[in-house]
Amino acid sequence: MNDTELAQLVIKRIEELGRISDEPGRLTRTYGSPAMRKANDLVAGWMREAGMTVSEDAIGNLSGRYAGNEDTSKTFILGSHLDTVRDAGKFDGPLGVVAGIACVQHLNEAKAKLPFAVEVISFADGEGMRYRTSYMGSKVVAGKFNEKKFAKTDASGVTLEEAIRAFGGKPEKVMAAKRNPEDLLGYAELQIEEGPVLEKKYQPIGVVSAIAGQTQIKVRFAGQAGNAGTTPMGMRHDALVAAAQFVVAVETSTRLYTDLLATVGHIEARPGVGHVIPGEVVLTVDVRHQMDSIRAAACDRLQLTANHAGESRGVAVEWEVVHEAQSVQCSRELTDTLAKAARQHLVDVMELVSGAGHDAAIMGEITPAVMLFVRCKGGISHHPDEWASVEDVAVAVAVMNDFLLLMANRQNVPRKKKA
Amino acid sequence: MNDTELAQLVIKRIEELGRISDEPGRLTRTYGSPAMRKANDLVAGWMREAGMTVSEDAIGNLSGRYAGNEDTSKTFILGSHLDTVRDAGKFDGPLGVVAGIACVQHLNEAKAKLPFAVEVISFADGEGMRYRTSYMGSKVVAGKFNEKKFAKTDASGVTLEEAIRAFGGKPEKVMAAKRNPEDLLGYAELQIEEGPVLEKKYQPIGVVSAIAGQTQIKVRFAGQAGNAGTTPMGMRHDALVAAAQFVVAVETSTRLYTDLLATVGHIEARPGVGHVIPGEVVLTVDVRHQMDSIRAAACDRLQLTANHAGESRGVAVEWEVVHEAQSVQCSRELTDTLAKAARQHLVDVMELVSGAGHDAAIMGEITPAVMLFVRCKGGISHHPDEWASVEDVAVAVAVMNDFLLLMANRQNVPRKKKA
Repeated sequence: MNDTELAQLVIKRIEELGRISDEPGRLTRTYGSPAMRKANDLVAGWMREAGMTVSEDAIGNLSGRYAGNEDTSKTFILGSHLDTVRDAGKFDGPLGVVAGIACVQHLNEAKAKLPFAVEVISFADGEGMRYRTSYMGSKVVAGKFNEKKFAKTDASGVTLEEAIRAFGGKPEKVMAAKRNPEDLLGYAELQIEEGPVLEKKYQPIGVVSAIAGQTQIKVRFAGQAGNAGTTPMGMRHDALVAAAQFVVAVETSTRLYTDLLATVGHIEARPGVGHVIPGEVVLTVDVRHQMDSIRAAACDRLQLTANHAGESRGVAVEWEVVHEAQSVQCSRELTDTLAKAARQHLVDVMELVSGAGHDAAIMGEITPAVMLFVRCKGGISHHPDEWASVEDVAVAVAVMNDFLLLMANRQNVPRKKKA
Repeated sequence: MNDTELAQLVIKRIEELGRISDEPGRLTRTYGSPAMRKANDLVAGWMREAGMTVSEDAIGNLSGRYAGNEDTSKTFILGSHLDTVRDAGKFDGPLGVVAGIACVQHLNEAKAKLPFAVEVISFADGEGMRYRTSYMGSKVVAGKFNEKKFAKTDASGVTLEEAIRAFGGKPEKVMAAKRNPEDLLGYAELQIEEGPVLEKKYQPIGVVSAIAGQTQIKVRFAGQAGNAGTTPMGMRHDALVAAAQFVVAVETSTRLYTDLLATVGHIEARPGVGHVIPGEVVLTVDVRHQMDSIRAAACDRLQLTANHAGESRGVAVEWEVVHEAQSVQCSRELTDTLAKAARQHLVDVMELVSGAGHDAAIMGEITPAVMLFVRCKGGISHHPDEWASVEDVAVAVAVMNDFLLLMANRQNVPRKKKA
């Protein structure tokens, strides 16, 4: 199969997986669900067709392994996930898994063996919908999983431990599924961008240089409610005006730090009635940057800004960091190799930062990791309208194929053994 | 009874009325309800005790009439309402009715007759909770009631027409309850301030010079939702930042116009999730001023400000005026007379504008109207914590008594007849 035929196969399989859902009428495939069982089984068949040996670990990660041509224990992983958000699009997750299989199929058809094994892993929990977790699958592989999570319950009260057993795994074997970093050569993840940059820049693909760190903050402005008709402006402690001044400052702050993203996504004013001065406002701030020091400096500055907006109105401000994730730098060596592969197909290659988290952030803790983004229509993801063209997928698959070949040429240690 | 004893009686009766509710555990007394029936019947008894002739019109307004000493057809009305909001305070409404009865009782105990009849009216719908109406009672008296309202239904599907009948009135007689403005000498309404100004200025009472006009606006900011982690700041159409800029501008605008009140009480950002850029924001603006021309100018300016906040971010702005009420100027003559009465008890008297609407605004359309405000604790109203001291009520009752005497002295036409 040539690149276009491979891409057509990838899209066909993505469509097929898109019909496997926990809910009628829309795509929802959560961790350990019957739909995940069907999806894993279907994908296992495709892996075998592509010449891979298939296994599933205790947490539910599906792995297809294509042996190398040398007596090498080294493995390069192509990973992504098969679980989805609620009412999801078809591409986020499955694209990486199915494209990885297509790469191996391409090698297998040519009867080509690389000086390392290529393993396609479909992680079991890329979205974390069911247990409000994140990346349980890659955390198990990376040895970062915490067994305390077994007691977590889903919306129906089913514990994670029960869900693992129902899916066919043994909870007591979960920790043993950890991989030895020594055996790994690296990790690559192919994903739709889930953002609008590639489309706006007319690029089919982009190489990811880092996964941004993230701080999620809950800010509470506590003023005093009052009658909007009878309280003079000078006697007010309007929590919403203080909050609004802060919201504007959040946008303004992003001009001070290149690439800083800062967003107020949720706001609630109480009591929330037209004729009552809001006495309390709660809002969320989401701050992301590829450099943790810049993110920290921006958050400190935003907190001062919030306090300032409150002070001038007699409004108290509470600042609570509810979630924090460090940034992950992609391997410079793998990024350069991926960019080199991409330049064999494109005049120039764009480097970008992933604002969304990915299993690559976890895998990056134990082995060099890299990501390749594919342009998606309108930057839309986590929505049924999620879409990437077969042409762009063809470029991505071709680049991944060439990336593996460049990696093979770079890996001359095992070859020397043979010589 | 002296002023303090009268005030103690007023407070005692307010407490008694505060226990008559449609709901257990909190005070809610809506138009035409069984609690309103009990309240009207209780108050009717107090009216009779004070020497008044009692009647109830078709809409449910309760009226106690204390005849004048001359053969005059002129009537001065002391009015307020007995219905309440949900989970109300005890003072808003009842204070004016019960204090009016106390004034008449004072005259009756002294066997004093004035050269006009004094009528205490308890309007049936000062809050408009049940039918989302406003001032149905005073509108009937003023001849401003619209019969189309009969078809309105409450939350249980009961029409206003049915509610009138259930309360004992005949809908076909509602329009006939209109009063002839020729018969009226004026209207005075005693109310708690429902605001913090008197308390902040250490004044027990204040004379109301005008009831502010009001514009309620719904503003919709329509931008574009997007992933907070993957959409660069320069590619955003964040509806919330545009809205926040507007909220700050609403506050700022009030510095341009003396006494302007402008409030954003309700705001909703959609989808309202921390990691999603808000694509749509809906908010309300409440604008009040005693001069309609200033209110109109301020609203025009605010609309330009909203458009400006939207334009710079590619966010569309929809501006919808959902309610508008003209301001009502109190009678200068009655205001001066009331202030003169007040100066017999206080060093100086404060004049203020009522930001909240009142039955006085309706009655002011057919006869000279005036209002007297009593300081309330913390400016709180429409809440169980609503409270006015017996000392302040004593001042208010004394001022109203003296006001009626000053009015009697001013009204020398009937006396001349006798001389």
